[in-house]
Amino acid sequence: MTQKKNIAIMGAGLVGSLLSLYLAKHGHKVDVYERRPDMRKITLDGGRSINLALSDRGWRALRGIGIEEDVRKVAIPMHGRMMHDEEGNLTFQPYGKEGQSIYSVSRGGLNAALMNLSEPNEDITYHFNRQATDVNLRENTIELLNTETDETETIKPDLLFGADGAYSVVRSAMQKAERFNYEQSYLEYGYKELTIPAAPDGGWLLEKNALHIWPRGNYMMIALPNIDGSFTCTLFFPYEGERSFAAIKNDTDLLNFFLEVFPDAVPLMPDLAEDYFSHPIGSLVTIKCFPWSYNGSALLIGDASHAVVPFYGQGMNAGFEDIAVLDQMLEDFDGENWEELFKSFELRRKSNADAIADLAVLNFIEMRDKVADPRFLLRKKIETKISEQYPDKWIPLYSMVTFTDLPYSYALETGQNQDKIMKKVMKHIKTIEDYDKPEVQQLLQEELVHKETLKRYAGEETGVKG
Amino acid sequence: MTQKKNIAIMGAGLVGSLLSLYLAKHGHKVDVYERRPDMRKITLDGGRSINLALSDRGWRALRGIGIEEDVRKVAIPMHGRMMHDEEGNLTFQPYGKEGQSIYSVSRGGLNAALMNLSEPNEDITYHFNRQATDVNLRENTIELLNTETDETETIKPDLLFGADGAYSVVRSAMQKAERFNYEQSYLEYGYKELTIPAAPDGGWLLEKNALHIWPRGNYMMIALPNIDGSFTCTLFFPYEGERSFAAIKNDTDLLNFFLEVFPDAVPLMPDLAEDYFSHPIGSLVTIKCFPWSYNGSALLIGDASHAVVPFYGQGMNAGFEDIAVLDQMLEDFDGENWEELFKSFELRRKSNADAIADLAVLNFIEMRDKVADPRFLLRKKIETKISEQYPDKWIPLYSMVTFTDLPYSYALETGQNQDKIMKKVMKHIKTIEDYDKPEVQQLLQEELVHKETLKRYAGEETGVKG
Repeated sequence: MTQKKNIAIMGAGLVGSLLSLYLAKHGHKVDVYERRPDMRKITLDGGRSINLALSDRGWRALRGIGIEEDVRKVAIPMHGRMMHDEEGNLTFQPYGKEGQSIYSVSRGGLNAALMNLSEPNEDITYHFNRQATDVNLRENTIELLNTETDETETIKPDLLFGADGAYSVVRSAMQKAERFNYEQSYLEYGYKELTIPAAPDGGWLLEKNALHIWPRGNYMMIALPNIDGSFTCTLFFPYEGERSFAAIKNDTDLLNFFLEVFPDAVPLMPDLAEDYFSHPIGSLVTIKCFPWSYNGSALLIGDASHAVVPFYGQGMNAGFEDIAVLDQMLEDFDGENWEELFKSFELRRKSNADAIADLAVLNFIEMRDKVADPRFLLRKKIETKISEQYPDKWIPLYSMVTFTDLPYSYALETGQNQDKIMKKVMKHIKTIEDYDKPEVQQLLQEELVHKETLKRYAGEETGVKG
Repeated sequence: MTQKKNIAIMGAGLVGSLLSLYLAKHGHKVDVYERRPDMRKITLDGGRSINLALSDRGWRALRGIGIEEDVRKVAIPMHGRMMHDEEGNLTFQPYGKEGQSIYSVSRGGLNAALMNLSEPNEDITYHFNRQATDVNLRENTIELLNTETDETETIKPDLLFGADGAYSVVRSAMQKAERFNYEQSYLEYGYKELTIPAAPDGGWLLEKNALHIWPRGNYMMIALPNIDGSFTCTLFFPYEGERSFAAIKNDTDLLNFFLEVFPDAVPLMPDLAEDYFSHPIGSLVTIKCFPWSYNGSALLIGDASHAVVPFYGQGMNAGFEDIAVLDQMLEDFDGENWEELFKSFELRRKSNADAIADLAVLNFIEMRDKVADPRFLLRKKIETKISEQYPDKWIPLYSMVTFTDLPYSYALETGQNQDKIMKKVMKHIKTIEDYDKPEVQQLLQEELVHKETLKRYAGEETGVKG
């Protein structure tokens, strides 16, 4: 059992709230400081929160503190992608095998649930309206401005966790320390939140159990179901160019554009113009940095250390997996050397954080462009067949990321190998029936069985079980 | 003629001082603000300034304001690299053709010269001991703390230039603005400045007209001549590992290490231990960012926008080239749209800044490792022969970077093509005489004449004359 520490967590978002529960479980006293007011008591401005898709990594972390079932009650399973073409025709592509789904949840709802669960814990205290105005890593002191009372207090915890998101102030302090590697890169795309309201009877106006996509080449709209019958839509759109945020200047521009490219959605969006012109444009940033810790006293976690774009639906899941991994490491920890613990943690997670960041950018191209291509969809079907025939040897990339806890870095690398094999396979494929052609079967046998055996003999196994 | 603007330059370093002269030449009023005291009046702490190597791009910018000849008087030409092996044997490799050299200059001396030249200009005013405590880009106001008097003043120039180096406060302000792409990455190496003093008669203890290198695989020492007879040495060394800064704990460790790997240098370095243990370890950072400007009111220039590691000797030269390019653009500028001017400037320079950043990292490997390889030196000689035979078609990469004003990005790309050709050529080469073998001559004819002609017919010319 490790010595009880006074721990400060910056940020009461999803990762900060969940982390508090895990740290308290390990016997520590936790104070959570949040810049904003208590979200459970006020209505936050909407219009900038993409719905969340919970998948296996996230569920695992929720299960670890016993709230999986409670969250399932308010989560809507999405079994696959529903593509809408420019004539309004629909195509469905399942995400995984029968029974595998990702789950639409409301960010606010899940966050409030995590707070409600942790607040009664006598070792966890929330402090809202606390803006960190100065973080001194060397002394491990944090100056906090109470934005309600205008009073300033300085805290000096034993350990500081930066769970304060993509614009982390704890990370900013690290950036001023020696030799901190840091990268922030923005896509030339922004996003705008829109709404499809519930049907008059409270039902859903589109298929409920799907993630809807209107793929249009270099831009797209998506829609995720909410439990009140509405859908939260997000338009991902270039900032500049012929078809862009810059080009849509008024209601007429907007309506003409939507009628042309999303004709089936327009009748479902009565507040389109109001939503569009009142909501801000969100930006899409990837943040990579290293190290994530400062001595043995401060550690970044979640978006603060690895913000990703939302296209793989893995931002929250990756942050929750950080916590699950840390939990595992705390189980075996002697309570002595936090510096070593933090260093092991960041080393273990860094390559995975980089991998999901890159996968998320790549998946944007898949979602906005490739899913509209029949050839791509045929390839997905062929891949499903391969994974049915060789379940031990082939898990599709999307499934590795979404339905397993295989390291993201392993998924990325394996996915690249699969891509090479699929290019060879697809040369022989015109229809789904071609899968049974001898040359296809022989190719797969060669690639998946013969080469695998050679690799094993050469001692080149990855050490990760597929 | 453009309207006279009040321009603030942050930073009175090499780039800031030179820039003031060019902006005044174009009719503007310039105030230069520097955090440190006037370097001409105090002795700055030594031990962290790698000597500078002036090359053609730098000279061109100095020529533009008529101080080329003055600087040449205090610059020492270095005609090539002098490699020292572990037995103290020497090998010389010229940098370019007969008469082509890079020039060792003292950072402090050159900086003082630029200040002395600009200060009498009635449109240029220097303000020392001014620390920018807040930069508001939206209002273009800068809060300055006078560190001598503790007074604070706020300035509001028409235009703000951030020439404040790798740790630019102007860039920090931009980083907080929307969609600023930014990357800082550190090598796992640091550097330590050491000295070889002048001979008792004031002469040089090593060959004066060379850049000395002790290449040792994953680390190295270099030495550049000073006009007082001394050499400034720099040890580039891993932070951690068997042979590293961390491993050298006391005088004995240091001396044993130096005697083993730099035996010919030890007798020339009487103050080795004192220098080593009193000088700080410098870090080696690459900084990339984009955009470099904010609206039409602020622009980053030099290291502030593109800090590079020192291994190509191009940091200052690239910064000076920024100024020469800006000067050229100001010649054709109508004085109206500064935003457009800044945008054209950053677009024109960005790919070149990225290229020299990457080239500098690559050159570290060449300097510390490859130059000790006879095969590499033979290849360099063969390359010289190619460029003598085909002067219109082949300028070696080092020469393009150092002795021309071809865009760095063009140099990088062309260098990569040359590398491919050299790999083919070197398969046929055992000695320098093999250059005349028919198969080598035929290969070069094919690569440099035949393919070139095909490219020209295909209309794929780069538009850059070699």
